[in-house]
Order: sequence, then C-alpha cells, then structure tokens
Amino acid sequence: MLNFILVEASLEVVPREIQNHPQIKAYAKRFKKKPEKILLDKSYHYQAMGKLPFKEKRGRPDIVHFTLLEVLGSPLNFERLIKTYIHTLTNYAIYINPETRLPRNYNRFIGLIEQLFQVGKVPLEGEPLLTMEKLSLENLLKKINPSKTFLLTEKGKPSTPIMLAEKLEKEVNPVIMIGGFPHGEFKDETLKLTDEKVCIDPKPLDTWIVASRVIAAYEAKIGLPEKRLKIQP
Amino acid sequence: MLNFILVEASLEVVPREIQNHPQIKAYAKRFKKKPEKILLDKSYHYQAMGKLPFKEKRGRPDIVHFTLLEVLGSPLNFERLIKTYIHTLTNYAIYINPETRLPRNYNRFIGLIEQLFQVGKVPLEGEPLLTMEKLSLENLLKKINPSKTFLLTEKGKPSTPIMLAEKLEKEVNPVIMIGGFPHGEFKDETLKLTDEKVCIDPKPLDTWIVASRVIAAYEAKIGLPEKRLKIQP
Repeated sequence: MLNFILVEASLEVVPREIQNHPQIKAYAKRFKKKPEKILLDKSYHYQAMGKLPFKEKRGRPDIVHFTLLEVLGSPLNFERLIKTYIHTLTNYAIYINPETRLPRNYNRFIGLIEQLFQVGKVPLEGEPLLTMEKLSLENLLKKINPSKTFLLTEKGKPSTPIMLAEKLEKEVNPVIMIGGFPHGEFKDETLKLTDEKVCIDPKPLDTWIVASRVIAAYEAKIGLPEKRLKIQP
Repeated sequence: MLNFILVEASLEVVPREIQNHPQIKAYAKRFKKKPEKILLDKSYHYQAMGKLPFKEKRGRPDIVHFTLLEVLGSPLNFERLIKTYIHTLTNYAIYINPETRLPRNYNRFIGLIEQLFQVGKVPLEGEPLLTMEKLSLENLLKKINPSKTFLLTEKGKPSTPIMLAEKLEKEVNPVIMIGGFPHGEFKDETLKLTDEKVCIDPKPLDTWIVASRVIAAYEAKIGLPEKRLKIQP
C-alpha cells in the first residue's frame, strides 16, 4: 500500500484579512456567496492577494483538482493500492475515499470543496467521499504510521522514477509527499518530517506530472499492468 | 520524435441546431457572448444537447485541457521530443507550439479556445501558440507522414505501457492516437487510419491517464530521466 500526501496544498477559503477587499466583495456579489465561504483563487483574486504572506504559494485549487484526477483515475487506485490524502498550507487534513469520482468540471469541483470547507464532509448525506479536519502534518503522519517518508523536491537526491519505485516497493508502509503549491520553498516542518528527499527531474515539474511519473513507475515496478492485462511477465 | 494526436477530441462551438435552445440563450446572455462563439460544454448545456447526434462524445473541453497540460508539461516535451496535435470530432486540426504554457484555470482555457475557434490562431499578435484549420484526420496524417500509427483502445492488443514504448522506440516517425472523448466508439475513419490497436488497461481510463502512462513509459524507455538527471544508466 502506497500512501500519497499532497502536502502544503494551495487550498483555502478567502482569509479574514482580505475578505473586505473590493475584488473579493465584487466576486462574492457576482456569485451570490459570502466572502468567507469562497475558495481563494489566484485567477480571480490576484489583486486582493497582494499583501498576503507567502502569496506565491496560495490560491491554486486547480493544482489539487488536476492532481487528484491523476491519482484517483490511476489503475493503482482502481486496485485500492494507494491511499490519498491532502494536507493544506493552513493545516487541514483531507481524507479521500478511493471510490470518489470527482467532478471533471473545475467550477463544480470548486463548489464541492467550498462545501467541504463549510461542513467538513461531502456529500452531506450517505457515506462521505471527502472529510476534513484541522490537523498538523505531524499528526496526520502519526495516524498513517509510515515506515518511511519520501518528499519529492528539486533539492533531493537525483533518482529516476523507477529508482524511487524500487525503494517504495521495499517499504512496508511508505509515504510519498508531493508539494501542492506552485512556487516557493517547503516549510521547515515538512522538511523535518521527511526521511528521504528525492528529485526526479532537474527542472520544476507540475505537481500532476510528478504524481503521474511516481505512480506510473510504481505500477510498472509491482507488475500491475501485466496483472491487470493478464500478460505473463 | 513521437507524434501525439488527441483524436476525435470533444471540442467544438455550440452547433447551429441548438443555438436557439433556451439553455444556450440564457448561458450566452449571462456571459455576454454570442451563442455561436461559445464552446459546447456538457456541464452547462446538458439539456440543450439532448437531441444532438453522438451527444455522449461531445461537449467535454476539460478532457482536452487536462490532457494537454499532461503532455505539454512532460519532460519529453521539454526536450522537444514530442509533437502535439488535436483533431476534433468536427474535423479541425489544431497545431500546438511546444512552448505553449496553457492557462491552468479552466475558464481562461475556455476563453482561449473560443478565441481560437473564432480567429484560427492564438494569440492574435506575435508567434502563434495554437493554430487551427479544417482538415480531415487522413490529411493531417499525410502531413505528418508517420512510419506507423498506434491507437489506444480497449479493443486493442493487451500491451503494457513499456511494451508499447519498446515498439514506439523502434519506429522512425510513430504516431500515438488517443481518444479525446468520454464515451462511445471510435469512428470508422479513425480505425481505418490505424496500423496497430493497443490496450494498456482492461478498464476504460481517463484520456489524461492514458497519455501520462504512454509518455512516462516512453521517457523511461529512451532513458530520458537518466539523461536529464545525469545519472549513469
């Protein structure tokens, strides 16, 4: 079983200090929502975000959307061999039921996540697909109890996806952590919770590309395509 | 060089026969656009699409968006070792400059593609990143002049991504064709232009998952991670 955490994910509602900014108020009015219930989105709130600390890391729910579609749609997830978590920049842990079929449409995804931030789970009735709680990354990792944590970062040891997959395969309960933010450095807290830093490409790759490379290599390493296709290895 | 064609891509403006449907008119009014300039989107035009032929294959620009982000963000594209094309259900060929940095935001992507359908290229000034022309798949393939065409389909010969990559590597000018629509069968025309049908998973996979698996396996096969990371193979 592979544990996948999208760490420092750029997913939050509009923070209090900019809820009265004219750009936020106009946006809220247009979509008939309350400012505090709107998901922060750099595409629409760029000016309002001007003075936010660490603004270069914030307001990118599209990164979470693409990456989750990449992970949840993988054959590895169909086999229930990967557990998917999000840990946000503002210290929320989000648990994702592997059966979740996320909306493909971005605006519907945003609506779903806004509901999640408001209520703590979606859907409201029946078995929840996404649930959320305030929790540090450290405490999320305590729950998972990994045998080893790997962080994907340009500052890690150069390693092809296949070399990484070989290491993952040897672990009882490995955790893969991939940054869910567009630019900037990892927090010290994240680095402290990392056992091994790995670099799969010298250039910065989009989060969903890193996710697909790691998962594809792991699938290949454990012979999943052969198994699913019933081909003799 | 690998040629990648997203075939039968679910990308078109609202067709004439439903431009007067109340759902389309309301949508057009809300966004202050003319119905004939709006991109068809099942998320918003579901009712209006009720009587369209082949409606199960149409109105999914998100598939094109995700898949292009997956291809253009790949190390293979950074090395300019893949050429990316779209061929739409309604017979337009779209040429994609490998340097294109697409909008990550879905709504901005839609705006860009609407402009492309209107003008035939984007951006309007300077070197075009996307250009479009009415062209059959047959004539697009004549331009590319492939040594062999491969179509990814559940009805193909079972083959792991790595087995497929081995075949691709042996070709001088191979074309990979992946369906850019959500459900339904390939057109006869597409099948006739296929030299080899390949199945990489027994279950239907999302288009962007197929794209990432094929590209990741090809990168691994040609030793691209080792080369970029300067690791001895």
